[in-house]
Parts: sequence; structure tokens; C-alpha cells
Amino acid sequence: METRPTIRPAAATDDDAIWAILEPTFRAGETYPIPRDVSRADALAYWRTPGHAMFVAEDGGAIVGTYYLRANNRGGGAHVANCGYMTAPGATGRGVARAMCEHSLRAARERGFTAMQFNFVIASNERAVRLWRSCGFAIVGRLPQAFQHPRLGLVDALVMVRAL
Amino acid sequence: METRPTIRPAAATDDDAIWAILEPTFRAGETYPIPRDVSRADALAYWRTPGHAMFVAEDGGAIVGTYYLRANNRGGGAHVANCGYMTAPGATGRGVARAMCEHSLRAARERGFTAMQFNFVIASNERAVRLWRSCGFAIVGRLPQAFQHPRLGLVDALVMVRAL
Repeated sequence: METRPTIRPAAATDDDAIWAILEPTFRAGETYPIPRDVSRADALAYWRTPGHAMFVAEDGGAIVGTYYLRANNRGGGAHVANCGYMTAPGATGRGVARAMCEHSLRAARERGFTAMQFNFVIASNERAVRLWRSCGFAIVGRLPQAFQHPRLGLVDALVMVRAL
Repeated sequence: METRPTIRPAAATDDDAIWAILEPTFRAGETYPIPRDVSRADALAYWRTPGHAMFVAEDGGAIVGTYYLRANNRGGGAHVANCGYMTAPGATGRGVARAMCEHSLRAARERGFTAMQFNFVIASNERAVRLWRSCGFAIVGRLPQAFQHPRLGLVDALVMVRAL
């Protein structure tokens, strides 16, 4: 069933809920280039790096997803945004990631970005690739064997871009 | 004339010489996605970020180039290296960048990396693109209009990779 979560800026008091989403994903090690044994503090610092705008998606009073939005580069590259999204394990398959992506495209436009780039989409994460394509992203690069997948071994990573 | 500079790890006392190389390149704003008005401290911090191995190239007692070597990602992406190179303005055209690149490929292999990736080669920097190709790098991605060039306007950036 599709859901329409409420998406709002993350508060410091959301850290427990955000970590509850980050932890199983980082521990699985299948979708982000982050150590599987990353600590809570390190993981939250990565997600909350200075310059990141952070958001959470709420549905029925529970936080079901989180994403960050930032400039992908500085100087001559500062007009391109970058985001990272994560959906809570129990909330997949009902449109949370799509809702976050659509929210992020609006948020990026509002901030004056003219494009969005994903630097490292794991090619074996087919659901994500399909979702980003359906949100208007094109594959503009393929990084051969750039990711050591814990079950599949070396897999490619994709660079995906869309104009805003 | 080709030169064979001596390449060695950078010391803290090399900061003045390194800044003398970084400053004109960042001020020109044509090759790195860094603000043209970047401060000395910010520029050196970028070049010397924790996790960067930093090197300088010396020729005839003068520092004629500098590069950094780091893991491009963590976790499942930690086997791919990334480098940034810069040659002193008065020392271009005599093989300093090539010597640094060859040194960096060896240094990366020694550290156990199995590939090297350049994330953001400005397509209008044709000399660099040609040099990296001749050093075995292939273009695996093209980021459309990802860089605002101060003279040329929006230009593409390239992702280049080679196995080690």
C-alpha cells in the first residue's frame, strides 16, 4: 500500500529513530560504502555532516525514513545537489523512498540547485536503480567492481544524474 | 624537457610550498570544484584531510608538484583509491604530473588498493584528460554540465578509472 509520509527537517531528538534506520542498513553493508561495524556516533556524524540538510519521514507517528541533502561539490560544482536516502526495515515497499526523493527534488530546487547526482548507487540494489530511474535519473557512469558486496562479491556502482 | 622529480611524503614544513601551488590553481577555478576565494587554511585542510597521504615532487631543490592519495570510499568501497594532483605554475609541461601519477599508482598498489578513480576531471582540462588516458585511465562516466567554468560556462566533468 502506498503511503504519503510527512517529511520534515530532522531534529536532534530524532537521533535514536535515525540510528534505528541507519544501523541495520550499515550492518548489512549492501548499499552504502560505510564500514559494517560503524559506530552509532560515526554513522550519525556521516549522516549529519556539516552542510547536510537532514530530513525524516513520519507515518502514523513513527519515523519510517530519513534522507540528507547537500551540495555534491564546492566552487564550480556547487550547483549540483547530492542526497542519501534510507527507509526503515519494516517500512519498505510502500513508497517511502519515492516520497523522500520527490521531497528532495523540490527541496533542492528551492535551494537553487540545478541538478542532482547520486555518486555511488550499488548496481545490485536493483530496486533502488529502478526507483531512481522512475524518478527521472539517468545512469551517466558505471564504476567497475567498485563495491565489495558481502554476499555477491565485487559489483559495479552507478553514477546517476537528473536535471532539476 | 622531461624531468624526473624526486617524490617524497610531504612534511608540515612544506605547507608554504604547497600553498604556493594550490593558490593559483584554486584562484583560477578551472580544474577543481573548490571556491576561488578559498583561504589558505581551508585549502590546506582540504588537501591534508585526515586519511590523505600527501606527497610533494622536488626538482632542483624546488617543490614543483603535490598530490594526495586516499581511499575513495569506506567499507565496501575502500579498495578503490583516489588522488588529486597539482603542478606548480612554472613547472608545467615537463612531466611532473605524469611522474606524480606513476608514483601514486605504485603507492596505491603498495597500500593494497586494486583500482584508482578520479571523481571529477573537468572535461575542458584536455591536457589532464589526455595525460590520465595515457596513464591507463578510462572514462567511465560523464557528468553533464557538472562544473561552472569561469571562462567557458557549464562544462562536463568526467569520471575516470583504472585497475591497479
